[in-house]
Amino acid sequence: MDLRPHLRVPPGSPVRMQDLDPRATPGMEGLSTRDAKDRAEQEVAANADRMAVLQQRLFAENRRALLIVLQGMDTSGKDGTIRAAFSGLNQQGCHVTSFKKPSEDEADRDFLWRIHAAAPPKGEIGIFNRAHYEDVLIVRVHEMVPQGVWERRYAIINDFERYLSVTGTTVLKFYLHISRAEQRERLLARLADPEKRWKFSMQDIAERARWDDYMEAYRAALERCSTEHAPWHVIPSDRKWYRNWAVSEIVRATLEEMDPMIPPTDLDPASIDIPE
Amino acid sequence: MDLRPHLRVPPGSPVRMQDLDPRATPGMEGLSTRDAKDRAEQEVAANADRMAVLQQRLFAENRRALLIVLQGMDTSGKDGTIRAAFSGLNQQGCHVTSFKKPSEDEADRDFLWRIHAAAPPKGEIGIFNRAHYEDVLIVRVHEMVPQGVWERRYAIINDFERYLSVTGTTVLKFYLHISRAEQRERLLARLADPEKRWKFSMQDIAERARWDDYMEAYRAALERCSTEHAPWHVIPSDRKWYRNWAVSEIVRATLEEMDPMIPPTDLDPASIDIPE
Repeated sequence: MDLRPHLRVPPGSPVRMQDLDPRATPGMEGLSTRDAKDRAEQEVAANADRMAVLQQRLFAENRRALLIVLQGMDTSGKDGTIRAAFSGLNQQGCHVTSFKKPSEDEADRDFLWRIHAAAPPKGEIGIFNRAHYEDVLIVRVHEMVPQGVWERRYAIINDFERYLSVTGTTVLKFYLHISRAEQRERLLARLADPEKRWKFSMQDIAERARWDDYMEAYRAALERCSTEHAPWHVIPSDRKWYRNWAVSEIVRATLEEMDPMIPPTDLDPASIDIPE
Repeated sequence: MDLRPHLRVPPGSPVRMQDLDPRATPGMEGLSTRDAKDRAEQEVAANADRMAVLQQRLFAENRRALLIVLQGMDTSGKDGTIRAAFSGLNQQGCHVTSFKKPSEDEADRDFLWRIHAAAPPKGEIGIFNRAHYEDVLIVRVHEMVPQGVWERRYAIINDFERYLSVTGTTVLKFYLHISRAEQRERLLARLADPEKRWKFSMQDIAERARWDDYMEAYRAALERCSTEHAPWHVIPSDRKWYRNWAVSEIVRATLEEMDPMIPPTDLDPASIDIPE
């Protein structure tokens, strides 16, 4: 099904974070949790197969690209979504870029410099694990630049994404929405598991203390940067199975709509001789 | 099982292409084709799961890298191997680079410049679809540079790969070996399938006419560049199921041997309080 109308932030409309339910399951109404999970699992697998076919066509067509942006609080599941929802994509033709603290070189440039450099080439799918939105999220929350600077960025981002869009790159943005209580559970689980403990940092707790500031920064980004050419989708992410399913459905539906075409060829197979 | 001793080109030993059987199935002795295929399929799936765990540890360890080099004639299955044998790897932390005709910028540099730039960072797995070997394969066959230039490259490549190896990157090289007859079948199949016809180019036939020259160029590369620090493996590739299994086994065995470790942490989970 096409979940986009259910989860998209309508361009130009106000966003209230308290109205976004991290445990909602739009598209799964009337199903028991067990049935919904079963259905989600089956459809994620079917979508993976279908996405492999569509990706191959996108690559053959070599005319357009797809950019997927993932944002969300710590533990919201950006890494897990990449593992679970995109497993069908061929490594070749799909590149994940994780944006961390800018290097010295990057910090010496405008904030979109490193982002633009990582934009997917024609025929490919790019996945951004965090992206230019960090420059209106962590940067705003920690006041790393004056308000006058980050305030201008929303319009700059919209212009940049429109530019990507008109030059052939479909831009799909996902905000993985978790609750404060769920984050606590996940941090505790991370600490408890020796295979995952290395991911834990005391910094996570410091960031968590700014939860409300982050929610206000996300609110502004969702409200001001959900556009016709690059809409935001809010993915309820307290339940991992729903999060994976919703992202998988939206990516598949977007690729279907892009409808990439194997380029026509003039070759007449019958006329071609391949010597022994 | 560890197929490496069976398929590795022993460093320093002569290579005769006619001794390499593209239909061989080392490690599957005594099994019917049906049983061998079943076993291969099961083990490729199990290896994918295992590789996912080991990749995660490699990433957490963040100290070493793995570089996988794929070379082979047109239709030998470089793309197919990436799809089939590496499906378990997380897109994040695994990057495929396809080396095509050098850009003007690249052609203005030494031949290893673009290769080095694409080497995997610590904690990651890099897959090269074609690589610096093109500079002693197509370049040699088509005499794009004088013999004196390509002759020097074997030693330069060995030095470069030793450098990668001592600085923490395990280098694993696969030559996908197909027969001339099998290539013909695959080119015909490509022509016959409307979803695949776009991959066909008349250039493929021109290159095929130089089969013997290519075999001599591969022979030299295998013989002169199979080293202790970066051995070549010859993968019999007329049967796709065997090719996928062999590559999957060798990559898994190599990761097991690397034995990446989750870094130890001083954190005492009991001492950490995560506020509600």
